[in-house]
Amino acid sequence: MPAYKAPLRDTRFLLNEVLDYPAHYGALAAGAEATPDVVEAILGECARLCEDVIAPLYHSGDEEGCHWENGEVRTPQGFKEAYQAFVEGGWQGLSHPVEYGGQGLPMSLGAIKQEMLGTANWPFAMYPGLSLGAMNTLMMHGSDEQKATYLPPLTEGRWAGTMCLTEPQCGTDLGQVKTRAEANADGSYALTGTKIFISSGEHDLTENIIHIVLARLPDAPKGTRGISLFIVPKFLVDADGSLGARNCVTCGALEKKMGIKASATCVMNFDAATGYLVGPPNQGLECMFTFMNSARIGTAIQGVATAELAYQGALAYARERRSMRALSGTKEPQQVADALLHHGDVRRMLLVQKAVAEGGRMLVYLAAQYADRMIEGILAGDSAKQAHWDDKLGFLTPILKGCLTELGLEAANLGMQVYGGHGYIREHGMEQIVRDARIATLYEGTTGIQALDLLGRKVLLMTRGKAVRQFTGDIAALAWTLLKEEPGMRGKALTLLRLCAQWNWLTLRIALIARKQRDLVGTASHDFLMYAGYVTLAYSWALQERAARQRMRDGGLESLDFYQAKLATSDFYFSRLLPRAKAHAAAMLSPAEKIMELPAEHFAFD
Amino acid sequence: MPAYKAPLRDTRFLLNEVLDYPAHYGALAAGAEATPDVVEAILGECARLCEDVIAPLYHSGDEEGCHWENGEVRTPQGFKEAYQAFVEGGWQGLSHPVEYGGQGLPMSLGAIKQEMLGTANWPFAMYPGLSLGAMNTLMMHGSDEQKATYLPPLTEGRWAGTMCLTEPQCGTDLGQVKTRAEANADGSYALTGTKIFISSGEHDLTENIIHIVLARLPDAPKGTRGISLFIVPKFLVDADGSLGARNCVTCGALEKKMGIKASATCVMNFDAATGYLVGPPNQGLECMFTFMNSARIGTAIQGVATAELAYQGALAYARERRSMRALSGTKEPQQVADALLHHGDVRRMLLVQKAVAEGGRMLVYLAAQYADRMIEGILAGDSAKQAHWDDKLGFLTPILKGCLTELGLEAANLGMQVYGGHGYIREHGMEQIVRDARIATLYEGTTGIQALDLLGRKVLLMTRGKAVRQFTGDIAALAWTLLKEEPGMRGKALTLLRLCAQWNWLTLRIALIARKQRDLVGTASHDFLMYAGYVTLAYSWALQERAARQRMRDGGLESLDFYQAKLATSDFYFSRLLPRAKAHAAAMLSPAEKIMELPAEHFAFD
Repeated sequence: MPAYKAPLRDTRFLLNEVLDYPAHYGALAAGAEATPDVVEAILGECARLCEDVIAPLYHSGDEEGCHWENGEVRTPQGFKEAYQAFVEGGWQGLSHPVEYGGQGLPMSLGAIKQEMLGTANWPFAMYPGLSLGAMNTLMMHGSDEQKATYLPPLTEGRWAGTMCLTEPQCGTDLGQVKTRAEANADGSYALTGTKIFISSGEHDLTENIIHIVLARLPDAPKGTRGISLFIVPKFLVDADGSLGARNCVTCGALEKKMGIKASATCVMNFDAATGYLVGPPNQGLECMFTFMNSARIGTAIQGVATAELAYQGALAYARERRSMRALSGTKEPQQVADALLHHGDVRRMLLVQKAVAEGGRMLVYLAAQYADRMIEGILAGDSAKQAHWDDKLGFLTPILKGCLTELGLEAANLGMQVYGGHGYIREHGMEQIVRDARIATLYEGTTGIQALDLLGRKVLLMTRGKAVRQFTGDIAALAWTLLKEEPGMRGKALTLLRLCAQWNWLTLRIALIARKQRDLVGTASHDFLMYAGYVTLAYSWALQERAARQRMRDGGLESLDFYQAKLATSDFYFSRLLPRAKAHAAAMLSPAEKIMELPAEHFAFD
Repeated sequence: MPAYKAPLRDTRFLLNEVLDYPAHYGALAAGAEATPDVVEAILGECARLCEDVIAPLYHSGDEEGCHWENGEVRTPQGFKEAYQAFVEGGWQGLSHPVEYGGQGLPMSLGAIKQEMLGTANWPFAMYPGLSLGAMNTLMMHGSDEQKATYLPPLTEGRWAGTMCLTEPQCGTDLGQVKTRAEANADGSYALTGTKIFISSGEHDLTENIIHIVLARLPDAPKGTRGISLFIVPKFLVDADGSLGARNCVTCGALEKKMGIKASATCVMNFDAATGYLVGPPNQGLECMFTFMNSARIGTAIQGVATAELAYQGALAYARERRSMRALSGTKEPQQVADALLHHGDVRRMLLVQKAVAEGGRMLVYLAAQYADRMIEGILAGDSAKQAHWDDKLGFLTPILKGCLTELGLEAANLGMQVYGGHGYIREHGMEQIVRDARIATLYEGTTGIQALDLLGRKVLLMTRGKAVRQFTGDIAALAWTLLKEEPGMRGKALTLLRLCAQWNWLTLRIALIARKQRDLVGTASHDFLMYAGYVTLAYSWALQERAARQRMRDGGLESLDFYQAKLATSDFYFSRLLPRAKAHAAAMLSPAEKIMELPAEHFAFD
């Protein structure tokens, strides 16, 4: 069973030595309270909560799962108490406004909290995580009255929230949403329809659940332009804020899933349930998608969490399990065999996990800085600032969500692989990580949807390639600095420059071909996404290696081992994982016709 | 739920048009009975059994799992009846000698049977599959009396067999085996110890179970040279062949696993259980490993089976589920949205599955021809012939077992991915394929062990690179023929020639460096294996494309669509999957020191 230990040394390195969070917070209005002392205290307290209270429920929650009876859902043993501890610690409102009872700290600290929480126990973390989506939506689009009614108990964590999008006939293609909302005389609406795959749709952790629901008004246009957003509380809320009548929204069933079994995935039936319109009619999708990037970064975190937890589990086993002798000669003569850690291929697997976990973590923290600045733009009403950082965040989002969840799954599978046959046995807990990780490439937009979002929307449609030029501009700037200042990184700097040029060239080629052959955007998108991911991780590792080298020169000798391990992992990434970008570069320009012209009926023959 | 349909058109193409099985059987002593009519009848009957009787139990077997009570194991509902139908059809002894009640047909037909059976329901197929291992071991190393006693009921399928190797402290490293065998006065032995992960160790399908057990004699040398092989029947067998006393071998527990839940994975306790020595003392491992290649090819089949079943399931869904409009414009205007099959990235996923399933199937059938010839060498006492084909089979074995199981898992995951969020829900059956496939890279030697077997043993130690030179010789010969005869395949032929040169060069480089830096064999092995796998699949696709082109020229117009689909899949493989070989080639020569010199305690920091 992997016992979670928060990787605080790495988090501190990334915050303080790579991304200069102190300066970032210093320049941020919402960052005034996020002094180094406060940040350090939050990291320590959060780690303690996650290690001691939340992680111990990870495996038992999977074994027990959630229970459904007559529409009521009971979470696994211990979840209620752990959630209570989470609420009492004030963790739910960490990054939300003081006026609603939050701590008013930057969004990025919330992301770091979610990472620890999610690594300790992803299915548990989904309950407060989904609430954040509802809170953000209300904060952005709710009326003052709606905010006053719902945000304080949500911020406290006394209530929870959900996002009700998917229906049986559609997930990706929300234009097919059928749930109807008909006006009541009192200005509320009666919602009728069925939603599926609703995470935290029903549970026993909170006294009320606030559903944010996509539905159609009677006169709504067809497709995506006819969808509106509604609040549907489980219990209606009286004028004084106390709970009123039970609303006609019920959990009809729990989905039986491959994993995240402790997270209640609900079929939700709305039978003329009372709802309240949020934002303008027919603009529900736009409202819902305001925080789409943040939600997707939240899922990217699952990739990092998965890689980290699988790494911790595999490393512990590789140290204690003994099998065969090392190829270069016996390493532990007093033992019956050498530890797995002395075998090259086991080290390779561990280093893949480490490179993904630490490389991905830095990218999440970088994206979180972008989110901080975007939110500052929103709060200051500075739409240019908001747009600038939203664009930067929007470009990184599909790359992180798409690639980190795919690589997180790979890392989870490697965790099983290190255990050999024992990895397949439930009691060791490694297979649970794989099952839980498997959802990450599916929800919040599949990898294929991220790929289309990146190439089709963010790169070609919205920016005509400028997004790539800008991001590779950042990478190239780093590479030129490295060429000047880090002779030990000359090879990596040249590699980065070559990749920047190649990425732009590939983008241009696709743009040109896609003018005539639109399908290329679809057939190339996956390889484009993964290529982008490997280059972006190379950027992460170059930044980390540079910081480690600087610190070693500046006399950071108290952490010499740590920095040397960073250099070794960076070397590993560049020599062992980055070459995969070659394969994706070679594949993406392959003519779309070859894929698209195969008649549908020729995919199989009797 | 994917409904299995045996891909007979593809099997016929591979047997008759690519690998010329009729000629192969014509030249084989054991092939006299395997006339085209007989083969065709077997394919049809086997397909019917698998589709109608065995496949329908795949999902229900997973949901129900096996039941343990007081040492007895009950298989899921329907398994007993299905197994009975299998026995009554004479399927267990298909490729085993007539003198023991078998049908005496070539081993390769048994492999094709196992493929269908395994695609329909892998956990079910494991019961008769494990018996084959026991039967082969007895046939090769048992005394005449042992053969006469055990082989007829095993061949009939009235009894089943197991292979008891793994113990809690060792799986890969069998030198650590502790189970003791002490001589009884009557020439039998008393075996005491615990074995784990014993597939089919206990069940209700047969009246007796014959365990083949690795154990140590009291005076045995330490390590692998002190292990002997024993027969331990569940019920002792009286002189007249009837069942006698219950032996002291019991199932202490069933392992709780990620998947293959309908296959009973047992902890087996031997409490002075009566056993009989098979083969010479202390040569148990050699005896056990005679059919190691065949057993591993049996597991390679799981990769093909997985890819095929996931492909069938995903293709059906991609045809029926509608989401969004195709990038190049609406394809189904009368529908609310276009079918998934009109989206480029969905096609990409399906074609990966198809390329793996069909490419891998051909390689399994090729390896099965090698096995046929090796067995002919054994039966004829022609040790040179045996060694020649065993070497060829031995080289292909780790490539197929290692790569096809890894790619099968990828294909299974793509099957889930095509389903989007629905893929994560148990009722659709796609996630079961992933869970069941996940064992394949772990048992019968992990992927890491296959990689070491290939590079360390078969390539460097045993043949000093000659194995690569020979196999690339086969590939290059094909490529030269293509250059002469198939102008449409010029590009692929040149690619193959380049890969042959590169593979030999990489092998030579590794051999030279490994003289000084032995660890390189370990650190390079995985990338070497996967590189070998991608090149070998390219060979498979080149052979298939060539056959399809020849047939089209020769007027095979009744199957024109089928052949054109082969060409499209071959194009896809060469342009989309084969480029991954570049990444592996680039990674494998990365210096071992970079991985090995990181001190064990520097893998993680508090």
